[in-house]
Amino acid sequence: MTEQPTTAPDSASTQSDEQQTVEEELVARVAASFAGTADPRLRQLMQSLVKYLHGFIREVRLTEAEWNTAITFLTECGHITDDTRQEFVLLSDVLGASMQTIAVNNQAYQGATEATVFGPFFVDDAPEIPCGGDIAGGATGQPCWIEGTVTDTDGRPVAGARIEVWECDEDGYYDVQYDDHRIAGRAHLFSDDNGWYRFWGLTPVPYPIPHDGPVGRMLEATGRSPVRAAHLHFMVSAPHQRTLVTHIFVAGDPQIDIGDSVFGVKDSLITRFDQQPAGTPTPDGRDLTGRSWARADFAIVLAPEGA
Amino acid sequence: MTEQPTTAPDSASTQSDEQQTVEEELVARVAASFAGTADPRLRQLMQSLVKYLHGFIREVRLTEAEWNTAITFLTECGHITDDTRQEFVLLSDVLGASMQTIAVNNQAYQGATEATVFGPFFVDDAPEIPCGGDIAGGATGQPCWIEGTVTDTDGRPVAGARIEVWECDEDGYYDVQYDDHRIAGRAHLFSDDNGWYRFWGLTPVPYPIPHDGPVGRMLEATGRSPVRAAHLHFMVSAPHQRTLVTHIFVAGDPQIDIGDSVFGVKDSLITRFDQQPAGTPTPDGRDLTGRSWARADFAIVLAPEGA
Ligand SMILES: [Fe+2]
Ligand SMILES: [Fe+2]
Repeated sequence: MTEQPTTAPDSASTQSDEQQTVEEELVARVAASFAGTADPRLRQLMQSLVKYLHGFIREVRLTEAEWNTAITFLTECGHITDDTRQEFVLLSDVLGASMQTIAVNNQAYQGATEATVFGPFFVDDAPEIPCGGDIAGGATGQPCWIEGTVTDTDGRPVAGARIEVWECDEDGYYDVQYDDHRIAGRAHLFSDDNGWYRFWGLTPVPYPIPHDGPVGRMLEATGRSPVRAAHLHFMVSAPHQRTLVTHIFVAGDPQIDIGDSVFGVKDSLITRFDQQPAGTPTPDGRDLTGRSWARADFAIVLAPEGA
Repeated sequence: MTEQPTTAPDSASTQSDEQQTVEEELVARVAASFAGTADPRLRQLMQSLVKYLHGFIREVRLTEAEWNTAITFLTECGHITDDTRQEFVLLSDVLGASMQTIAVNNQAYQGATEATVFGPFFVDDAPEIPCGGDIAGGATGQPCWIEGTVTDTDGRPVAGARIEVWECDEDGYYDVQYDDHRIAGRAHLFSDDNGWYRFWGLTPVPYPIPHDGPVGRMLEATGRSPVRAAHLHFMVSAPHQRTLVTHIFVAGDPQIDIGDSVFGVKDSLITRFDQQPAGTPTPDGRDLTGRSWARADFAIVLAPEGA
């Protein structure tokens, strides 16, 4: 395990004064070229980008061969990207940039449920199910009863919260990854008058992110697993509350220790999924025809809008 | 003119302690995910990249909408890039990243001629001309006599140095930008036994980098010119000397003050191009049939190999 870089670098500190001046003067000149940007936010973004990009090049003393490799890598990411494959999002994900953006925009707020990555598999028009309904829609896997409350950070129930849930099947594929236009493993429902929700889903299983492209080769070269810890996606929205995009993870999933490939795991989101032997009565009397099932409780706490 | 960022940022310093801990813990976790990288250099590159990328996101408090814009921008760069158009190189160029990489790899060395960007228009198989020959090959523009010495940093002449030169025509286009396979405005020659070189070229003119793609739109949005200061490219190599890739720029070119779009200008590379009225005798007796011409002197000083 190498030492982790946690402090600001002392860029290029082993270079001569003359060389440091050349490098610093260039950074200042490039930053200054954006001084005329009409939009002050765009100016800030570009000038900060310049500072960090040059800081990286100077700290690692990037070679011209490495620069070429980087150009080739980005080109390959661009060429594999199309309407159904987004390699730049994968790249952002595996570098933790997606998760850091989530962290920056969903600040920890009192006891509110923590957010995590959105992922590429949400679709807008998932079917509505009643409270207690089944999201599987033909997706295979172990049935799993999930229930809990939706409250605000003062503990008041939130009735009528819209709860979108989506997950992969037992083979690790989302419906949209099949080419038969199926809709399965996704739905939305609403919390009841007491802020309670419940539905049948599938016990989540780990799956790899698409790793047959340049990002997959980068993970391979760096000894990293492309696999995501098993999870079920939630997006919960209600008037006057901050929309929550999150997952629940499965306590005991070994991939949590190996490392979720997109850094989505937060301790507070790891949830007990209690296995129920075949024949155990179900909460709603559903007949599972001799199959085992699981159950999980997940209490959702929404931050106020603007928090 | 805004304040230039020249020091390491105090990332996210206005955030709560709890929020800062969340963000810093994520950076450490992502960096740690690369700890198992077999190649120590690749590990260093990835861990440094993570640190700077997250530093940027945290400093600017990147919004999810801005993250989306960045993903779209990279996607568009990827889709316009093909065998003859390299948008990622343009992006690197206009962010000064190409020039910083040059700076890092071609450290200032005593009186050696400074390097600058290579650019996308070099080709390997330019014709050889004798000392005093003409590189134009049909490219149009004002004839220009260029001569000088090639020496090492101790002032010793370097005989037989290979000198590649290339430039655009008076319309601002390199031969490779036409689709008729012409070879024009480029050649190579060798310094003579006294380390002297001389050739006929064209007086350089400014030209824009390709700006009909996402990088051009970024320049437009930030109020920047896509135009490069007028220049003539040199690549000079000789045994036991560090290969020099550079340009000469034209003293008095207004684009030098406006700003070269790829930050290639260094004061030491700005060269006097003396205008010669029509009828002025030429150094080699060439008959320019009543046209004006220009002349420039450029002394090339090569650093030792490994400097
Ligand atoms: Fe997922
Ligand atoms: Fe050029």
